[in-house]
Amino acid sequence: MTGAEALVHTLLGSGVDLCFANPGTTEMHVVAALERIPGIRCVLGLQENVVTGAADGYWRMAEKPAATLLHCGPGLANGLANLHNARRARSGIVNIVGDQATYHRALDAPLTADTEGWARNVSAWTRTVRDAQTVGRDAAAAIEAARQGQIATLIVPADTAWNSNSSIGGALPVASAPEPAPSAIEEAARALRSTQPTLLLLGGRSLRAAALTTAYRIAARTDAQVMAEMFNARIERGCGRPSISRVPYLVDQAVAKLAGFKHLILVSATPPVSFFAYPGKPGHLYPPDCELHVLARPEQDGPCALAQLADRLQAPISSLQEPDRPKEVAHGSLTVAAAAQTIAALLPENAVVVNEAGTCGPAIFSASQHAAPHDWLDLTGGAIGAGLPMATGAAIAAAGRRVVALQADGSGMYTVQALWTQARERLPITTVVFSNRAYAILLAELANAGAQAGPIARKMMSLSDPAIGWTQLATGLGVEAARAETSEQLADLLRSSFRSSGPFLIEIPL
Amino acid sequence: MTGAEALVHTLLGSGVDLCFANPGTTEMHVVAALERIPGIRCVLGLQENVVTGAADGYWRMAEKPAATLLHCGPGLANGLANLHNARRARSGIVNIVGDQATYHRALDAPLTADTEGWARNVSAWTRTVRDAQTVGRDAAAAIEAARQGQIATLIVPADTAWNSNSSIGGALPVASAPEPAPSAIEEAARALRSTQPTLLLLGGRSLRAAALTTAYRIAARTDAQVMAEMFNARIERGCGRPSISRVPYLVDQAVAKLAGFKHLILVSATPPVSFFAYPGKPGHLYPPDCELHVLARPEQDGPCALAQLADRLQAPISSLQEPDRPKEVAHGSLTVAAAAQTIAALLPENAVVVNEAGTCGPAIFSASQHAAPHDWLDLTGGAIGAGLPMATGAAIAAAGRRVVALQADGSGMYTVQALWTQARERLPITTVVFSNRAYAILLAELANAGAQAGPIARKMMSLSDPAIGWTQLATGLGVEAARAETSEQLADLLRSSFRSSGPFLIEIPL
Repeated sequence: MTGAEALVHTLLGSGVDLCFANPGTTEMHVVAALERIPGIRCVLGLQENVVTGAADGYWRMAEKPAATLLHCGPGLANGLANLHNARRARSGIVNIVGDQATYHRALDAPLTADTEGWARNVSAWTRTVRDAQTVGRDAAAAIEAARQGQIATLIVPADTAWNSNSSIGGALPVASAPEPAPSAIEEAARALRSTQPTLLLLGGRSLRAAALTTAYRIAARTDAQVMAEMFNARIERGCGRPSISRVPYLVDQAVAKLAGFKHLILVSATPPVSFFAYPGKPGHLYPPDCELHVLARPEQDGPCALAQLADRLQAPISSLQEPDRPKEVAHGSLTVAAAAQTIAALLPENAVVVNEAGTCGPAIFSASQHAAPHDWLDLTGGAIGAGLPMATGAAIAAAGRRVVALQADGSGMYTVQALWTQARERLPITTVVFSNRAYAILLAELANAGAQAGPIARKMMSLSDPAIGWTQLATGLGVEAARAETSEQLADLLRSSFRSSGPFLIEIPL
Repeated sequence: MTGAEALVHTLLGSGVDLCFANPGTTEMHVVAALERIPGIRCVLGLQENVVTGAADGYWRMAEKPAATLLHCGPGLANGLANLHNARRARSGIVNIVGDQATYHRALDAPLTADTEGWARNVSAWTRTVRDAQTVGRDAAAAIEAARQGQIATLIVPADTAWNSNSSIGGALPVASAPEPAPSAIEEAARALRSTQPTLLLLGGRSLRAAALTTAYRIAARTDAQVMAEMFNARIERGCGRPSISRVPYLVDQAVAKLAGFKHLILVSATPPVSFFAYPGKPGHLYPPDCELHVLARPEQDGPCALAQLADRLQAPISSLQEPDRPKEVAHGSLTVAAAAQTIAALLPENAVVVNEAGTCGPAIFSASQHAAPHDWLDLTGGAIGAGLPMATGAAIAAAGRRVVALQADGSGMYTVQALWTQARERLPITTVVFSNRAYAILLAELANAGAQAGPIARKMMSLSDPAIGWTQLATGLGVEAARAETSEQLADLLRSSFRSSGPFLIEIPL
């Protein structure tokens, strides 16, 4: 058995049956093995950041890792940005990267690069296969790491894929997330009983509906407040679920919102810090005299910790006060608020919302808090270009559910190639592009920097010359598309796209 | 003076007056300084690999470095692939990357990444600014390195840009490339006088017209042969210049072409090795009994070494036997050969040809060897996605000259965003997309791997479902475009695009 064959058998034996791929020459023996050994669905991305972003979206909805297949060196480099985002989302990925044959590396052929060095920055687990004999064992270890929510990069030099004498790696057991220590429950309970202003800050898996409901039971019992981290891998929200606000992105707003709290209880979350530093503004967003308590670290079982805490506090089970679902679409001119209202009213049951609409996202988040039940996926690592790939992977994971991708035009251009994969795989994705023809967030940041946007800065932040024709771009990549100029047109296009089984793109010129 | 202002003044003082940019929040103070201090032309790319590839193309034609301006961490990561190519081309770039403020880094905000670690792999010179006071001095050192044909990455944490007390760095002198030692001339002369089969292998600046002419004088005197490396940063060729062949990409062809040589004289070149390893095939492409001689290392003055060698051998100045220029365009169905013939016949005087047409490029290289004088720029590092960005930068450097970008469809999709920059800057670029709707080169490599392309492998290498609409893509990005179905249509479209002042894209469905 060749190393490549052992790799494919090991993936299958451990339940990894999806591979997002953009292979090159050094991966051809793996491609040949994928051909010979059936069972792994291969999905091609036309650029590597599409591949890695799709693997991130897949994990968030499937809760199991996909494999990737990337070309050596610069191929991996092209996918690093979305691996960074995946790392921040704690998404597990079996990140398979080819490389020059072990004995060829010393010749420094033109494509030779430090594949492993680049991988280490985004990977919790990195290994370069030394010999075909160990490929199966190495792959099993990579899968074990990925199933724990880690980026596991397995670098497979070409000769370790083509040589024989390899054997399949047996599936390794993956322990469930550890429960927090009783002392952590006790400490949180003490803070909550203190009658001082207390915040439960939730992240990770503690933002699923059941855990959220538990958190609100605790809050109702103790007068604590509940909030989510700034950017979250996945929130289960909408009608029938508790609504939750997030730590704001703007430093002044965040500091104001966290002001006055004396206790901050972290549940699958980390201490809130500002996304960037600004002269004269704080880095920590919570008050200096606020005491931090860790109920559950991100890698621990947050939902279990919440349940134990609720028991300890004897928090009664309460029924949710349920506001009416938003049902009225907007009429007339298509502002951001009108778009938000219309999307919230029409959002399909169990939709998956993927949000990379930088300046427009918050309005839609607010408008949709009581919309049909849905999952909300954010850009977690700040590396823009995550939205369209993540929607692609989420749609494959969440079969039968509509994906609604909220996409800024600036960030959408980084990985626009993802639309082609959506077309090829006939994925049920409605992409709404908010086309303000600018890096609008940077214009605000330039003002933060105390500068006026003159002609030079505007030229670096305006996308209006030439205007990007999103419907032409989408059509060129095989995705049907149309522009919505009014709220009525948006509603019509959303409705018809939700009835269809394939992808559709709606451009909203703002 | 802020660090950002010192940076801009230092760039200007050292003659760096072009900045390819895709900035983010951590670079806003640099943007503000570029606004306040006039003199640097800023060119926006919509994805970082466009920015770095354009800087590579700019160096190759301008022979001086441009600056880049990239966002921290993942922003840099998105541009690594074309920095890899630039490194292999020995292109100089002042690669400026922002980063989290020095004191903010410890908070591990979501976008925090190991910017310096990623940069080191592609940079001959890397420095993270420690303090605003030293920005000017650090920038001057970066420019000094870049002017020697190196990637010099200067990482500028946000606070070192916004803090004051900085000062301008004075321009540092850059020594010209060192002359080779007399012993190297003597050794090469001895090999050439040996009457054994000898090859002059040329790379780098030894592929400019004057150096090439000298190499052919030496060859005429000694019966040596002359060849270029496999992939070259820039060859001056066409009518009135010696024609030169390249080391073939396919291992068997390369080994056959280099068979029998007893001496290999390297002139600004490195020993020829195969691009990838293959089972049972050699890594070194020259015969085991061939003796290697280094006339000039890549960083030395190869043209000067050739001139000294020609003098030593008393090689007479000979006039070039000049074949007729190809003038006949093809007729009828538009094959690769017909396209090659037509492009060669119509190529404008002093065009800059940028080649990333993987499987179609060699036919055009052959057909155009006696076409109008032109520069030919290859993908040097094997990281595909170089062509469209490189054409963009080359067009800015080579004002008044037409750029003809020969582009495969597969590789073109990696950095298609470059077309938008071509439209915005009204650059005189004719892009010819050879649309075979496949990673054709990989289908050949899969066969090399001894495998048959079944449905799974074909799905990873075919781009036909859906077919990419290149004219729609181009139009959506602001570039006029049309399809050529016949040779006559191709000729008409080429002629009209060569008369226009802006960009145009021609899709050839194969």
